Amino acid sequence: MYHVLSAHQFDRNQLNQLFRMAEIMEYTAANGGSNLLNGKIMAALFFEPSTRTRFSFESAMMRLGGKVISTENAAQFSSAIKGETLEDSIRVISSYADLIVLRHNEVGAATRAAKVSAVPVINAGDGAGEHPTQSLLDLFTIQKELGSIDNIHIAMVGDLTYGRTVHSLSYMLSRYENVTISFVSPENCPIPQKVKDFLEEQGVTYYEEDDLQTVAEKVDVLYMTRIQKERFPSGEEYLKAAGKYVIDQNVLDRMKQHAIILHPLPRAGEILPEVDEDPRAAYFRQATNGVYIRMALLAYCLGDKRAEAEMEALSKVMG
Amino acid sequence: MYHVLSAHQFDRNQLNQLFRMAEIMEYTAANGGSNLLNGKIMAALFFEPSTRTRFSFESAMMRLGGKVISTENAAQFSSAIKGETLEDSIRVISSYADLIVLRHNEVGAATRAAKVSAVPVINAGDGAGEHPTQSLLDLFTIQKELGSIDNIHIAMVGDLTYGRTVHSLSYMLSRYENVTISFVSPENCPIPQKVKDFLEEQGVTYYEEDDLQTVAEKVDVLYMTRIQKERFPSGEEYLKAAGKYVIDQNVLDRMKQHAIILHPLPRAGEILPEVDEDPRAAYFRQATNGVYIRMALLAYCLGDKRAEAEMEALSKVMG
Amino acid sequence: MYHVLSAHQFDRNQLNQLFRMAEIMEYTAANGGSNLLNGKIMAALFFEPSTRTRFSFESAMMRLGGKVISTENAAQFSSAIKGETLEDSIRVISSYADLIVLRHNEVGAATRAAKVSAVPVINAGDGAGEHPTQSLLDLFTIQKELGSIDNIHIAMVGDLTYGRTVHSLSYMLSRYENVTISFVSPENCPIPQKVKDFLEEQGVTYYEEDDLQTVAEKVDVLYMTRIQKERFPSGEEYLKAAGKYVIDQNVLDRMKQHAIILHPLPRAGEILPEVDEDPRAAYFRQATNGVYIRMALLAYCLGDKRAEAEMEALSKVMG
Repeated sequence: MYHVLSAHQFDRNQLNQLFRMAEIMEYTAANGGSNLLNGKIMAALFFEPSTRTRFSFESAMMRLGGKVISTENAAQFSSAIKGETLEDSIRVISSYADLIVLRHNEVGAATRAAKVSAVPVINAGDGAGEHPTQSLLDLFTIQKELGSIDNIHIAMVGDLTYGRTVHSLSYMLSRYENVTISFVSPENCPIPQKVKDFLEEQGVTYYEEDDLQTVAEKVDVLYMTRIQKERFPSGEEYLKAAGKYVIDQNVLDRMKQHAIILHPLPRAGEILPEVDEDPRAAYFRQATNGVYIRMALLAYCLGDKRAEAEMEALSKVMG
Repeated sequence: MYHVLSAHQFDRNQLNQLFRMAEIMEYTAANGGSNLLNGKIMAALFFEPSTRTRFSFESAMMRLGGKVISTENAAQFSSAIKGETLEDSIRVISSYADLIVLRHNEVGAATRAAKVSAVPVINAGDGAGEHPTQSLLDLFTIQKELGSIDNIHIAMVGDLTYGRTVHSLSYMLSRYENVTISFVSPENCPIPQKVKDFLEEQGVTYYEEDDLQTVAEKVDVLYMTRIQKERFPSGEEYLKAAGKYVIDQNVLDRMKQHAIILHPLPRAGEILPEVDEDPRAAYFRQATNGVYIRMALLAYCLGDKRAEAEMEALSKVMG
Repeated sequence: MYHVLSAHQFDRNQLNQLFRMAEIMEYTAANGGSNLLNGKIMAALFFEPSTRTRFSFESAMMRLGGKVISTENAAQFSSAIKGETLEDSIRVISSYADLIVLRHNEVGAATRAAKVSAVPVINAGDGAGEHPTQSLLDLFTIQKELGSIDNIHIAMVGDLTYGRTVHSLSYMLSRYENVTISFVSPENCPIPQKVKDFLEEQGVTYYEEDDLQTVAEKVDVLYMTRIQKERFPSGEEYLKAAGKYVIDQNVLDRMKQHAIILHPLPRAGEILPEVDEDPRAAYFRQATNGVYIRMALLAYCLGDKRAEAEMEALSKVMG
């Protein structure tokens, strides 16, 4: 049985396989979907609401012919209120479904769930912990857009202290050759020391920089993140931080022609709408890629011999 | 790409086609449904809850073989809280689904959504704006029940100031020949001047009347609406207005034998239960028609050549 | 048309048939599900949240090829707020779905719903009233685990005053031969007099006992229930009651080798995790059986001639 708990569980070879599978899934989705997971049921168990992530997983399951049982807000509605442990909830729900997608507010929840589940568990975010499918779709998007993840220079911009995606992505990028990272953040939310320590150990070159304009000129990927209002002591301080780094036409004009702008979304003003029409604005394509990555993961966790054969056949069709 | 944003977008010829398609859909539903939209996904994106409307759309989609991703209360749960614009939400969700059904509390939301969506958008109510599928099912029900919408006399009764359905229906009826409308409302919620102006421009005969008993004797359609408690300054005033027009056995006894009673539902006392068993009580059949109209609209927005061919074939079978 | 409103509507012969059907359903589920209810729609109408029960019904419907429209919290979201009666809601929703699963906080709600519904209604719990599918899965589990429900000694332990499942199960057990019941509860939540009166009328032997250790040695079934915090005047009193009867390794050591432990779940400390690995801990298998019982009931309410034929064929395959 195969669980998806952390982006770190994938080595570079597995990432390559996954991204190839995601490409096959894109082809599948564009051609009317598949019956690969016909008869299978996915439980979307969201202890905190995230309509976007839930929809992405549910869409992925349905594109493969599967069905979905779903709760928008398990914390409010479920047996949790009656004092039931996560472990008991998972034991029961794993007898209703063939796979569980779990979103939870506590770090480590998905790992605890996997220990007792009778079916595969996919981590759809565990508090300040991990959100592996987001990291995987980020990497997949870079590869699709630029052709390779080796030899790139990426800037990560915004709230680098609390931004879970930024940490995961930094760790994952160390698997690739000759990656350079520029961290650009307001003073009160820098990249944590432990991430820098890790990158140094791995021999990844990184810089902490202040001027987005200069950085924009030299990078292949500009990875923007939202400044999270709820982190700041006052509205005034939030606005100062939030307004500091904004991608507008000026920034765009400085960027390389082949470079791309990514964002895990939702955004809240840090990328102006005037940027959306530029072909380098890749953030909506990035969201779309999330469905293909999740289709690939679902097929991987739930697929059987028939699934493998179908994947192989499709791979040949696509050439 | 075809959006359904307003009832007004349909001319009389298109309405005829739609109602014919809805009849085919009724036949389809009664015979085990169809695979017309097999492999398609509808997103039900409800920023305010409306279980009834949501269920009607979801049922319509499923009767045609499609699948559904759904949120009961997007305003509370979604990225909207994090400051995301409706436009961004729609851009992302339109990469998860093949069609979006949008319920929103702001006038014009569906039109804004359609501008950025990569897939068709159906307006399922935008605040005080429009609720086109309700108007379409109202008209379809009149045609089914009476055989024609031309040459009818219809009374609209209840809260005519705030009742969105009454305004839309008035506008739509001007497309038909020789329609007469009697508006019957408590003094504090009359039909707005702008609706009257429109009807005068279009040459539609209308009356403002006070006595439901007299009106009941002469109309072909009695369209009741709920007095909305939340509109009134005090509970006492509400009760005075709410109690003024009630359909009971007395009113029924005065009505023509071929006449029908409609109501967009939910009702709250303005039609007594004793009326339900009378064959002229058409309001539950009206709700059922909502599924057929929505099946027709979904097929129209999502169908392809195969769908057209199947519709044509079914049309011949039905004679 | 067949409704499931009360466990009492099933006589012993019907229970035997139902349990046979549930076994066939278990076989079906283990072999990729069925298309028996293809094209059918179930409405899960939950006026109070119960993720577990809802998931179990939805999973059952999907395992049989059916589709689901669902609301997690109809009381908060639906037309009920606008003053609509349950009867009107049911009339409308029964035109959207082929079957309604109703959870409601008022006793008798399911029976009221069945009176006006155009489609079968299954009671998924009506307040302090009944929860028939829970009782049926309890009985089914005993039969599966022990081979028979006749000649058993069962202990019911915990909150016996408010525990709805314990009352229903007591009534249902009177249908079987030579059943003995031991009631074990804290002083402030004993089994009600009316249940005892009923058992006396039916000639069922029962005891009220105090010492779980002694009882554990002699029973075939230990049916634990949760002490419900909200019932007690103070936290201290709750803890006293809650802590009084706990199944741990000591209790387990005293139990017969063939005996089983059941629990309707969720639990909140009255069975220690150390018990879970023992083969006599049957409560998670019991939850799984809920899906098979619900599949059987759905097939019974919605199935046609083809369904009957398929059931018969499967029955032969299974021997």
